[in-house]
Amino acid sequence: MTGLMDPDGLEAALRRIGAERYHNLHPFHRRLHDGDCTRDEVRAWALNRYYYQSMIPIKDATVLTRMDDPALRREWRERIIDHDGREAGDGGIARWLKLTASLGFSDDYVTSTRGILPATRFAVEAYVNFCAKRPLLEAIASSLTELFSPQIIGERVSGMLAHYRFVSRDTLGYFTARPHQAKRDSDFALDFVRRHALTEAEQAAVLAALRFKCDVLWVQLDALWGAYVAGAVPPGAWRPGDLVQEDGV
Amino acid sequence: MTGLMDPDGLEAALRRIGAERYHNLHPFHRRLHDGDCTRDEVRAWALNRYYYQSMIPIKDATVLTRMDDPALRREWRERIIDHDGREAGDGGIARWLKLTASLGFSDDYVTSTRGILPATRFAVEAYVNFCAKRPLLEAIASSLTELFSPQIIGERVSGMLAHYRFVSRDTLGYFTARPHQAKRDSDFALDFVRRHALTEAEQAAVLAALRFKCDVLWVQLDALWGAYVAGAVPPGAWRPGDLVQEDGV
Repeated sequence: MTGLMDPDGLEAALRRIGAERYHNLHPFHRRLHDGDCTRDEVRAWALNRYYYQSMIPIKDATVLTRMDDPALRREWRERIIDHDGREAGDGGIARWLKLTASLGFSDDYVTSTRGILPATRFAVEAYVNFCAKRPLLEAIASSLTELFSPQIIGERVSGMLAHYRFVSRDTLGYFTARPHQAKRDSDFALDFVRRHALTEAEQAAVLAALRFKCDVLWVQLDALWGAYVAGAVPPGAWRPGDLVQEDGV
Repeated sequence: MTGLMDPDGLEAALRRIGAERYHNLHPFHRRLHDGDCTRDEVRAWALNRYYYQSMIPIKDATVLTRMDDPALRREWRERIIDHDGREAGDGGIARWLKLTASLGFSDDYVTSTRGILPATRFAVEAYVNFCAKRPLLEAIASSLTELFSPQIIGERVSGMLAHYRFVSRDTLGYFTARPHQAKRDSDFALDFVRRHALTEAEQAAVLAALRFKCDVLWVQLDALWGAYVAGAVPPGAWRPGDLVQEDGV
Protein backbone atom coordinates (compact mmCIF):
# COMPACT_ATOMS: atom_id res chain seq x y z
CA MET A 1 0.00 0.00 0.00
CA THR A 2 1.18 3.50 -0.76
CA GLY A 3 -0.93 5.23 1.91
CA LEU A 4 -3.81 7.57 1.17
CA MET A 5 -3.14 9.76 -1.87
CA ASP A 6 -4.64 13.10 -2.84
CA PRO A 7 -6.43 13.15 -6.23
CA ASP A 8 -3.30 14.30 -8.06
CA GLY A 9 -1.27 11.52 -6.46
CA LEU A 10 -3.90 8.98 -7.45
CA GLU A 11 -3.95 10.27 -11.01
CA ALA A 12 -0.17 10.06 -11.17
CA ALA A 13 -0.30 6.45 -9.93
CA LEU A 14 -2.90 5.62 -12.59
CA ARG A 15 -0.76 7.19 -15.30
CA ARG A 16 2.27 5.22 -14.12
CA ILE A 17 0.33 1.99 -14.65
CA GLY A 18 -0.34 3.08 -18.22
CA ALA A 19 3.32 3.92 -18.73
CA GLU A 20 4.31 0.43 -17.56
CA ARG A 21 1.53 -1.86 -18.76
CA TYR A 22 -0.55 -0.33 -21.57
CA HIS A 23 -0.51 -2.44 -24.73
CA ASN A 24 1.30 0.19 -26.79
CA LEU A 25 4.36 -1.44 -25.14
CA HIS A 26 3.53 -4.85 -26.63
CA PRO A 27 5.67 -6.01 -29.56
CA PHE A 28 2.56 -6.77 -31.61
CA HIS A 29 1.48 -3.15 -31.41
CA ARG A 30 4.88 -1.97 -32.62
CA ARG A 31 4.88 -4.57 -35.37
CA LEU A 32 1.41 -3.46 -36.49
CA HIS A 33 2.09 0.24 -36.69
CA ASP A 34 5.65 -0.11 -38.00
CA GLY A 35 4.30 -1.95 -41.04
CA ASP A 36 5.97 -5.25 -40.17
CA CYS A 37 2.78 -7.28 -39.99
CA THR A 38 1.80 -9.50 -42.87
CA ARG A 39 -1.64 -8.97 -44.32
CA ASP A 40 -2.77 -12.15 -42.55
CA GLU A 41 -1.52 -10.79 -39.22
CA VAL A 42 -3.51 -7.59 -39.80
CA ARG A 43 -6.52 -9.74 -40.69
CA ALA A 44 -6.17 -11.78 -37.51
CA TRP A 45 -5.84 -8.61 -35.44
CA ALA A 46 -8.97 -7.06 -36.98
CA LEU A 47 -10.97 -10.30 -36.71
CA ASN A 48 -10.12 -10.79 -33.04
CA ARG A 49 -10.40 -7.17 -32.07
CA TYR A 50 -13.93 -7.16 -33.51
CA TYR A 51 -15.04 -9.31 -30.59
CA TYR A 52 -13.65 -6.80 -28.13
CA GLN A 53 -15.40 -3.93 -29.92
CA SER A 54 -18.67 -5.83 -30.11
CA MET A 55 -18.77 -6.50 -26.36
CA ILE A 56 -18.01 -2.95 -25.22
CA PRO A 57 -21.66 -1.79 -25.34
CA ILE A 58 -22.67 -4.87 -23.35
CA LYS A 59 -19.96 -4.05 -20.82
CA ASP A 60 -21.21 -0.47 -20.67
CA ALA A 61 -24.79 -1.63 -20.22
CA THR A 62 -23.73 -3.64 -17.13
CA VAL A 63 -22.18 -0.42 -15.78
CA LEU A 64 -25.40 1.51 -16.46
CA THR A 65 -27.30 -1.00 -14.32
CA ARG A 66 -25.40 0.21 -11.25
CA MET A 67 -25.85 3.95 -11.84
CA ASP A 68 -28.72 5.39 -9.85
CA ASP A 69 -28.22 8.97 -11.06
CA PRO A 70 -29.90 9.88 -14.38
CA ALA A 71 -27.19 12.48 -15.10
CA LEU A 72 -24.51 9.83 -14.73
CA ARG A 73 -26.45 7.42 -16.96
CA ARG A 74 -26.91 10.12 -19.63
CA GLU A 75 -23.15 10.62 -19.64
CA TRP A 76 -22.31 6.91 -19.72
CA ARG A 77 -24.87 5.94 -22.35
CA GLU A 78 -22.96 8.05 -24.89
CA ARG A 79 -20.45 5.21 -24.94
CA ILE A 80 -23.14 2.79 -26.06
CA ILE A 81 -24.34 5.22 -28.73
CA ASP A 82 -20.78 5.67 -29.98
CA HIS A 83 -20.42 1.95 -30.57
CA ASP A 84 -23.93 1.00 -31.68
CA GLY A 85 -24.63 4.15 -33.68
CA ARG A 86 -27.83 6.13 -34.11
CA GLU A 87 -28.99 4.07 -37.08
CA ALA A 88 -27.95 0.99 -39.04
CA GLY A 89 -24.51 1.37 -40.59
CA ASP A 90 -23.47 4.01 -38.07
CA GLY A 91 -21.26 3.64 -34.98
CA GLY A 92 -18.00 2.02 -34.04
CA ILE A 93 -19.05 -1.60 -34.57
CA ALA A 94 -20.31 -0.89 -38.10
CA ARG A 95 -17.06 0.98 -38.82
CA TRP A 96 -15.05 -1.97 -37.56
CA LEU A 97 -16.93 -4.24 -39.96
CA LYS A 98 -15.85 -1.94 -42.82
CA LEU A 99 -12.27 -2.70 -41.82
CA THR A 100 -12.76 -6.47 -41.61
CA ALA A 101 -14.70 -6.45 -44.92
CA SER A 102 -11.86 -4.56 -46.59
CA LEU A 103 -9.55 -7.34 -45.40
CA GLY A 104 -11.71 -9.98 -47.08
CA PHE A 105 -13.93 -11.27 -44.27
CA SER A 106 -17.69 -11.54 -44.68
CA ASP A 107 -19.70 -9.76 -41.98
CA ASP A 108 -21.42 -13.06 -41.17
CA TYR A 109 -18.11 -14.73 -40.44
CA VAL A 110 -16.80 -11.85 -38.34
CA THR A 111 -19.98 -11.40 -36.29
CA SER A 112 -20.27 -15.15 -35.68
CA THR A 113 -16.89 -14.78 -33.85
CA ARG A 114 -16.27 -18.46 -34.54
CA GLY A 115 -12.76 -17.86 -35.85
CA ILE A 116 -11.45 -15.81 -32.93
CA LEU A 117 -8.78 -17.05 -30.57
CA PRO A 118 -10.06 -18.61 -27.34
CA ALA A 119 -7.74 -16.29 -25.41
CA THR A 120 -9.48 -13.29 -27.00
CA ARG A 121 -12.85 -14.65 -25.96
CA PHE A 122 -11.77 -15.37 -22.39
CA ALA A 123 -10.09 -11.97 -21.94
CA VAL A 124 -13.06 -10.02 -23.25
CA GLU A 125 -15.51 -12.06 -21.18
CA ALA A 126 -13.33 -11.41 -18.14
CA TYR A 127 -13.68 -7.68 -18.79
CA VAL A 128 -17.48 -7.86 -19.12
CA ASN A 129 -17.71 -9.98 -15.97
CA PHE A 130 -15.43 -7.66 -14.05
CA CYS A 131 -17.61 -4.68 -14.87
CA ALA A 132 -20.78 -6.62 -14.05
CA LYS A 133 -19.57 -7.90 -10.69
CA ARG A 134 -17.23 -5.30 -9.20
CA PRO A 135 -18.38 -2.06 -7.55
CA LEU A 136 -19.25 0.84 -9.86
CA LEU A 137 -16.08 2.72 -8.92
CA GLU A 138 -13.89 -0.16 -10.12
CA ALA A 139 -15.94 -0.67 -13.29
CA ILE A 140 -15.46 2.99 -14.16
CA ALA A 141 -11.76 2.84 -13.27
CA SER A 142 -11.26 -0.13 -15.60
CA SER A 143 -12.25 2.12 -18.52
CA LEU A 144 -9.29 4.40 -17.83
CA THR A 145 -7.07 2.72 -20.41
CA GLU A 146 -8.74 5.32 -22.62
CA LEU A 147 -6.50 7.87 -20.94
CA PHE A 148 -3.71 6.38 -23.01
CA SER A 149 -5.55 5.55 -26.24
CA PRO A 150 -5.66 8.86 -28.17
CA GLN A 151 -1.90 8.68 -28.68
CA ILE A 152 -1.81 5.02 -29.64
CA ILE A 153 -4.63 5.54 -32.12
CA GLY A 154 -2.82 8.41 -33.78
CA GLU A 155 0.32 6.29 -34.10
CA ARG A 156 -1.63 3.32 -35.37
CA VAL A 157 -3.53 5.16 -38.09
CA SER A 158 -0.55 7.06 -39.44
CA GLY A 159 1.65 3.96 -39.27
CA MET A 160 -0.90 1.71 -40.93
CA LEU A 161 -1.68 4.21 -43.68
CA ALA A 162 2.01 4.68 -44.37
CA HIS A 163 2.87 0.99 -44.47
CA TYR A 164 -0.07 -1.09 -45.71
CA ARG A 165 -1.47 -0.57 -49.18
CA PHE A 166 -4.49 -2.69 -48.21
CA VAL A 167 -5.83 -0.18 -45.69
CA SER A 168 -7.11 3.32 -46.37
CA ARG A 169 -8.35 6.31 -44.39
CA ASP A 170 -11.84 5.08 -45.21
CA THR A 171 -11.36 1.52 -43.94
CA LEU A 172 -9.72 2.92 -40.80
CA GLY A 173 -12.74 5.17 -40.22
CA TYR A 174 -13.28 3.59 -36.81
CA PHE A 175 -10.21 5.30 -35.50
CA THR A 176 -11.06 8.74 -36.83
CA ALA A 177 -13.87 9.13 -34.34
CA ARG A 178 -12.18 7.48 -31.38
CA PRO A 179 -9.62 9.96 -30.04
CA HIS A 180 -12.27 12.63 -29.47
CA GLN A 181 -14.66 10.12 -27.84
CA ALA A 182 -11.92 8.55 -25.75
CA LYS A 183 -10.76 11.95 -24.52
CA ARG A 184 -14.30 12.93 -23.50
CA ASP A 185 -14.90 9.56 -21.82
CA SER A 186 -11.61 9.35 -19.99
CA ASP A 187 -11.90 12.96 -18.76
CA PHE A 188 -15.22 12.02 -17.24
CA ALA A 189 -14.04 8.70 -15.77
CA LEU A 190 -10.86 10.21 -14.37
CA ASP A 191 -12.82 13.00 -12.69
CA PHE A 192 -15.21 10.42 -11.22
CA VAL A 193 -12.38 8.29 -9.88
CA ARG A 194 -10.53 11.31 -8.44
CA ARG A 195 -13.68 12.35 -6.58
CA HIS A 196 -14.84 8.92 -5.37
CA ALA A 197 -11.71 6.91 -4.52
CA LEU A 198 -11.25 8.45 -1.11
CA THR A 199 -9.99 5.62 1.08
CA GLU A 200 -6.81 3.60 0.81
CA ALA A 201 -8.87 0.53 0.01
CA GLU A 202 -10.79 2.32 -2.75
CA GLN A 203 -7.60 3.73 -4.23
CA ALA A 204 -5.94 0.30 -4.19
CA ALA A 205 -9.03 -1.18 -5.87
CA VAL A 206 -9.01 1.51 -8.55
CA LEU A 207 -5.35 0.87 -9.34
CA ALA A 208 -5.99 -2.88 -9.45
CA ALA A 209 -8.91 -2.33 -11.83
CA LEU A 210 -6.70 -0.45 -14.26
CA ARG A 211 -3.98 -3.11 -14.02
CA PHE A 212 -6.61 -5.76 -14.71
CA LYS A 213 -7.79 -3.87 -17.79
CA CYS A 214 -4.24 -3.55 -19.07
CA ASP A 215 -4.00 -7.34 -18.71
CA VAL A 216 -7.18 -7.76 -20.77
CA LEU A 217 -5.62 -5.82 -23.63
CA TRP A 218 -2.16 -7.38 -23.28
CA VAL A 219 -3.47 -10.96 -23.34
CA GLN A 220 -5.15 -10.27 -26.67
CA LEU A 221 -1.88 -9.19 -28.29
CA ASP A 222 0.03 -12.06 -26.67
CA ALA A 223 -2.45 -14.48 -28.20
CA LEU A 224 -2.19 -12.86 -31.64
CA TRP A 225 1.59 -13.09 -31.44
CA GLY A 226 1.61 -16.74 -30.44
CA ALA A 227 -0.93 -17.77 -33.06
CA TYR A 228 0.00 -15.66 -36.07
CA VAL A 229 3.56 -14.39 -35.62
CA ALA A 230 5.00 -17.49 -33.89
CA GLY A 231 2.57 -19.55 -35.97
CA ALA A 232 0.96 -21.74 -33.28
CA VAL A 233 -2.69 -21.32 -34.24
CA PRO A 234 -4.83 -23.10 -31.62
CA PRO A 235 -7.39 -25.70 -32.72
CA GLY A 236 -10.52 -24.17 -34.22
CA ALA A 237 -9.24 -20.62 -34.72
CA TRP A 238 -9.03 -18.85 -38.09
CA ARG A 239 -6.07 -19.94 -40.18
CA PRO A 240 -4.46 -17.73 -42.80
CA GLY A 241 -5.99 -18.60 -46.13
CA ASP A 242 -9.32 -19.71 -44.67
CA LEU A 243 -12.51 -17.93 -45.50
CA VAL A 244 -11.19 -14.68 -46.83
CA GLN A 245 -12.36 -13.42 -50.17
CA GLU A 246 -9.15 -12.23 -51.80
CA ASP A 247 -11.02 -10.28 -54.45
CA GLY A 248 -12.68 -8.35 -51.66
CA VAL A 249 -9.34 -6.89 -50.67
CA MET B 1 -24.90 -30.39 -37.87
CA THR B 2 -24.33 -34.11 -38.09
CA GLY B 3 -27.96 -35.09 -37.56
CA LEU B 4 -29.28 -36.90 -34.50
CA MET B 5 -26.81 -39.48 -33.19
CA ASP B 6 -27.41 -42.54 -31.06
CA PRO B 7 -25.49 -42.63 -27.75
CA ASP B 8 -22.57 -44.54 -29.27
CA GLY B 9 -22.35 -42.07 -32.13
CA LEU B 10 -22.36 -39.18 -29.67
CA GLU B 11 -19.66 -40.81 -27.57
CA ALA B 12 -17.54 -41.35 -30.68
CA ALA B 13 -17.95 -37.67 -31.62
CA LEU B 14 -16.90 -36.65 -28.11
CA ARG B 15 -13.83 -38.88 -28.28
CA ARG B 16 -12.89 -37.40 -31.66
CA ILE B 17 -12.82 -33.93 -30.09
CA GLY B 18 -10.38 -35.25 -27.51
CA ALA B 19 -8.24 -36.84 -30.21
CA GLU B 20 -8.06 -33.50 -32.04
CA ARG B 21 -8.03 -30.85 -29.32
CA TYR B 22 -7.02 -32.23 -25.91
CA HIS B 23 -3.95 -30.54 -24.48
CA ASN B 24 -1.79 -33.66 -24.62
CA LEU B 25 -1.32 -32.50 -28.23
CA HIS B 26 0.16 -29.17 -27.11
CA PRO B 27 3.94 -28.77 -27.46
CA PHE B 28 4.22 -27.64 -23.83
CA HIS B 29 2.81 -30.97 -22.64
CA ARG B 30 5.32 -32.88 -24.72
CA ARG B 31 8.14 -30.64 -23.52
CA LEU B 32 7.10 -31.18 -19.90
CA HIS B 33 6.89 -34.95 -20.00
CA ASP B 34 9.87 -35.42 -22.29
CA GLY B 35 12.08 -33.71 -19.73
CA ASP B 36 12.85 -30.71 -21.95
CA CYS B 37 11.46 -28.09 -19.58
CA THR B 38 13.81 -26.04 -17.45
CA ARG B 39 13.16 -26.06 -13.73
CA ASP B 40 11.70 -22.54 -14.08
CA GLU B 41 9.30 -23.75 -16.76
CA VAL B 42 8.15 -26.56 -14.45
CA ARG B 43 7.78 -23.98 -11.67
CA ALA B 44 5.69 -21.71 -13.89
CA TRP B 45 3.51 -24.64 -14.94
CA ALA B 46 2.91 -25.72 -11.32
CA LEU B 47 2.28 -22.15 -10.13
CA ASN B 48 -0.26 -21.43 -12.86
CA ARG B 49 -1.92 -24.82 -12.75
CA TYR B 50 -2.52 -24.30 -9.03
CA TYR B 51 -5.11 -21.67 -9.89
CA TYR B 52 -6.95 -24.13 -12.11
CA GLN B 53 -6.89 -26.78 -9.37
CA SER B 54 -8.04 -24.32 -6.72
CA MET B 55 -11.10 -23.24 -8.72
CA ILE B 56 -12.36 -26.73 -9.58
CA PRO B 57 -14.34 -27.17 -6.33
CA ILE B 58 -15.94 -23.75 -6.88
CA LYS B 59 -16.83 -24.81 -10.41
CA ASP B 60 -18.28 -28.05 -9.07
CA ALA B 61 -20.27 -26.18 -6.44
CA THR B 62 -21.92 -24.10 -9.19
CA VAL B 63 -22.87 -27.38 -10.87
CA LEU B 64 -24.32 -28.72 -7.61
CA THR B 65 -26.61 -25.67 -7.41
CA ARG B 66 -28.44 -26.89 -10.52
CA MET B 67 -28.90 -30.52 -9.44
CA ASP B 68 -32.31 -31.18 -7.94
CA ASP B 69 -31.73 -34.88 -7.33
CA PRO B 70 -29.97 -35.83 -4.05
CA ALA B 71 -28.48 -38.95 -5.67
CA LEU B 72 -26.93 -36.83 -8.39
CA ARG B 73 -25.59 -34.35 -5.84
CA ARG B 74 -24.09 -37.17 -3.75
CA GLU B 75 -22.26 -38.39 -6.82
CA TRP B 76 -21.05 -34.95 -7.88
CA ARG B 77 -19.97 -33.79 -4.43
CA GLU B 78 -17.26 -36.49 -4.45
CA ARG B 79 -15.41 -34.20 -6.83
CA ILE B 80 -15.37 -31.44 -4.23
CA ILE B 81 -14.21 -33.87 -1.55
CA ASP B 82 -11.42 -35.13 -3.81
CA HIS B 83 -10.03 -31.63 -4.19
CA ASP B 84 -10.72 -30.14 -0.75
CA GLY B 85 -9.99 -33.29 1.26
CA ARG B 86 -11.67 -34.65 4.35
CA GLU B 87 -9.39 -32.73 6.71
CA ALA B 88 -6.62 -30.14 6.58
CA GLY B 89 -3.63 -31.33 4.55
CA ASP B 90 -5.72 -33.83 2.61
CA GLY B 91 -7.10 -33.56 -0.93
CA GLY B 92 -5.90 -32.54 -4.36
CA ILE B 93 -5.30 -28.86 -3.58
CA ALA B 94 -3.11 -29.69 -0.56
CA ARG B 95 -1.22 -32.22 -2.69
CA TRP B 96 -0.70 -29.60 -5.38
CA LEU B 97 0.80 -27.27 -2.75
CA LYS B 98 3.30 -30.02 -1.89
CA LEU B 99 4.44 -29.88 -5.48
CA THR B 100 4.74 -26.07 -5.59
CA ALA B 101 6.52 -26.07 -2.20
CA SER B 102 9.01 -28.64 -3.49
CA LEU B 103 9.72 -26.25 -6.36
CA GLY B 104 10.54 -23.45 -3.94
CA PHE B 105 7.30 -21.44 -3.70
CA SER B 106 5.76 -20.50 -0.36
CA ASP B 107 2.14 -21.56 0.07
CA ASP B 108 1.23 -17.92 0.72
CA TYR B 109 2.63 -16.84 -2.63
CA VAL B 110 0.96 -19.69 -4.53
CA THR B 111 -2.45 -19.30 -2.91
CA SER B 112 -2.38 -15.51 -3.41
CA THR B 113 -2.28 -16.33 -7.18
CA ARG B 114 -0.69 -12.92 -7.73
CA GLY B 115 2.10 -14.34 -9.89
CA ILE B 116 -0.08 -16.27 -12.33
CA LEU B 117 -0.45 -15.33 -15.96
CA PRO B 118 -3.51 -13.21 -16.78
CA ALA B 119 -4.40 -15.71 -19.52
CA THR B 120 -4.53 -18.48 -16.89
CA ARG B 121 -6.86 -16.39 -14.76
CA PHE B 122 -9.17 -15.52 -17.65
CA ALA B 123 -9.33 -19.10 -18.94
CA VAL B 124 -10.13 -20.57 -15.54
CA GLU B 125 -12.71 -17.89 -14.82
CA ALA B 126 -14.27 -18.61 -18.19
CA TYR B 127 -14.63 -22.25 -17.15
CA VAL B 128 -16.26 -21.39 -13.83
CA ASN B 129 -18.60 -18.93 -15.52
CA PHE B 130 -19.49 -21.43 -18.23
CA CYS B 131 -20.50 -24.00 -15.64
CA ALA B 132 -22.43 -21.42 -13.64
CA LYS B 133 -24.37 -20.03 -16.58
CA ARG B 134 -24.93 -22.85 -19.05
CA PRO B 135 -27.52 -25.62 -18.64
CA LEU B 136 -26.59 -28.53 -16.37
CA LEU B 137 -26.13 -30.88 -19.32
CA GLU B 138 -23.45 -28.62 -20.82
CA ALA B 139 -21.75 -28.06 -17.48
CA ILE B 140 -21.47 -31.82 -17.02
CA ALA B 141 -20.30 -32.30 -20.61
CA SER B 142 -17.53 -29.74 -20.10
CA SER B 143 -16.01 -32.06 -17.49
CA LEU B 144 -15.52 -34.77 -20.10
CA THR B 145 -11.90 -33.84 -20.75
CA GLU B 146 -11.41 -36.29 -17.89
CA LEU B 147 -12.16 -39.04 -20.39
CA PHE B 148 -8.72 -38.33 -21.79
CA SER B 149 -6.80 -37.52 -18.60
CA PRO B 150 -5.87 -40.93 -17.13
CA GLN B 151 -3.51 -41.56 -20.03
CA ILE B 152 -1.93 -38.10 -19.97
CA ILE B 153 -1.39 -38.33 -16.22
CA GLY B 154 0.36 -41.65 -16.55
CA GLU B 155 2.63 -40.22 -19.23
CA ARG B 156 3.27 -37.10 -17.21
CA VAL B 157 4.24 -38.82 -13.99
CA SER B 158 6.53 -41.40 -15.56
CA GLY B 159 8.08 -38.76 -17.83
CA MET B 160 8.63 -36.27 -15.04
CA LEU B 161 10.05 -38.86 -12.66
CA ALA B 162 12.42 -40.09 -15.33
CA HIS B 163 13.66 -36.67 -16.38
CA TYR B 164 13.63 -34.22 -13.48
CA ARG B 165 15.70 -34.83 -10.39
CA PHE B 166 13.75 -32.07 -8.60
CA VAL B 167 10.47 -34.02 -8.56
CA SER B 168 9.70 -37.25 -6.75
CA ARG B 169 6.84 -39.71 -6.46
CA ASP B 170 5.98 -37.92 -3.22
CA THR B 171 5.84 -34.40 -4.67
CA LEU B 172 3.79 -35.73 -7.60
CA GLY B 173 1.33 -37.28 -5.14
CA TYR B 174 -1.50 -35.26 -6.67
CA PHE B 175 -1.36 -37.39 -9.76
CA THR B 176 -1.34 -40.73 -7.97
CA ALA B 177 -4.96 -40.30 -6.91
CA ARG B 178 -6.24 -38.68 -10.07
CA PRO B 179 -6.53 -41.47 -12.69
CA HIS B 180 -8.89 -43.50 -10.48
CA GLN B 181 -10.98 -40.42 -9.61
CA ALA B 182 -11.03 -39.18 -13.20
CA LYS B 183 -12.13 -42.59 -14.46
CA ARG B 184 -14.97 -42.75 -11.93
CA ASP B 185 -16.04 -39.15 -12.70
CA SER B 186 -15.86 -39.41 -16.45
CA ASP B 187 -17.73 -42.73 -16.48
CA PHE B 188 -20.53 -41.00 -14.61
CA ALA B 189 -20.49 -37.84 -16.74
CA LEU B 190 -20.36 -39.78 -19.99
CA ASP B 191 -23.30 -41.94 -18.96
CA PHE B 192 -25.26 -38.80 -18.00
CA VAL B 193 -24.52 -37.12 -21.33
CA ARG B 194 -25.36 -40.28 -23.30
CA ARG B 195 -28.75 -40.49 -21.57
CA HIS B 196 -29.67 -36.78 -21.60
CA ALA B 197 -28.39 -35.34 -24.88
CA LEU B 198 -31.32 -36.56 -26.95
CA THR B 199 -31.98 -33.81 -29.47
CA GLU B 200 -29.73 -32.48 -32.20
CA ALA B 201 -29.51 -29.17 -30.37
CA GLU B 202 -28.52 -30.85 -27.10
CA GLN B 203 -25.93 -32.99 -28.84
CA ALA B 204 -24.46 -29.96 -30.61
CA ALA B 205 -24.34 -28.09 -27.28
CA VAL B 206 -22.59 -31.02 -25.58
CA LEU B 207 -19.95 -31.18 -28.29
CA ALA B 208 -19.47 -27.41 -28.10
CA ALA B 209 -19.05 -27.65 -24.32
CA LEU B 210 -16.26 -30.17 -24.68
CA ARG B 211 -14.55 -28.07 -27.37
CA PHE B 212 -14.81 -25.05 -25.08
CA LYS B 213 -13.19 -26.98 -22.23
CA CYS B 214 -10.37 -28.14 -24.49
CA ASP B 215 -9.82 -24.44 -25.30
CA VAL B 216 -9.64 -23.64 -21.57
CA LEU B 217 -6.81 -26.15 -21.14
CA TRP B 218 -5.06 -25.26 -24.40
CA VAL B 219 -4.98 -21.52 -23.65
CA GLN B 220 -3.17 -22.22 -20.38
CA LEU B 221 -0.36 -24.08 -22.15
CA ASP B 222 -0.18 -21.47 -24.92
CA ALA B 223 0.30 -18.79 -22.28
CA LEU B 224 3.00 -20.79 -20.49
CA TRP B 225 4.79 -21.29 -23.78
CA GLY B 226 4.68 -17.60 -24.71
CA ALA B 227 5.77 -16.40 -21.29
CA TYR B 228 8.38 -18.97 -20.24
CA VAL B 229 9.55 -20.83 -23.34
CA ALA B 230 9.44 -17.90 -25.80
CA GLY B 231 10.34 -15.64 -22.87
CA ALA B 232 7.68 -12.91 -23.19
CA VAL B 233 6.54 -12.73 -19.56
CA PRO B 234 3.61 -10.30 -19.37
CA PRO B 235 3.72 -7.38 -16.90
CA GLY B 236 3.07 -8.43 -13.31
CA ALA B 237 3.47 -12.20 -13.73
CA TRP B 238 6.06 -14.32 -11.92
CA ARG B 239 9.54 -14.06 -13.41
CA PRO B 240 12.14 -16.80 -13.12
CA GLY B 241 14.32 -16.02 -10.15
CA ASP B 242 11.62 -14.15 -8.25
CA LEU B 243 10.33 -15.35 -4.94
CA VAL B 244 11.52 -18.93 -4.99
CA GLN B 245 13.47 -20.31 -2.11
CA GLU B 246 16.23 -22.28 -3.81
CA ASP B 247 17.10 -24.15 -0.65
CA GLY B 248 13.55 -25.39 -0.53
CA VAL B 249 14.18 -27.35 -3.70
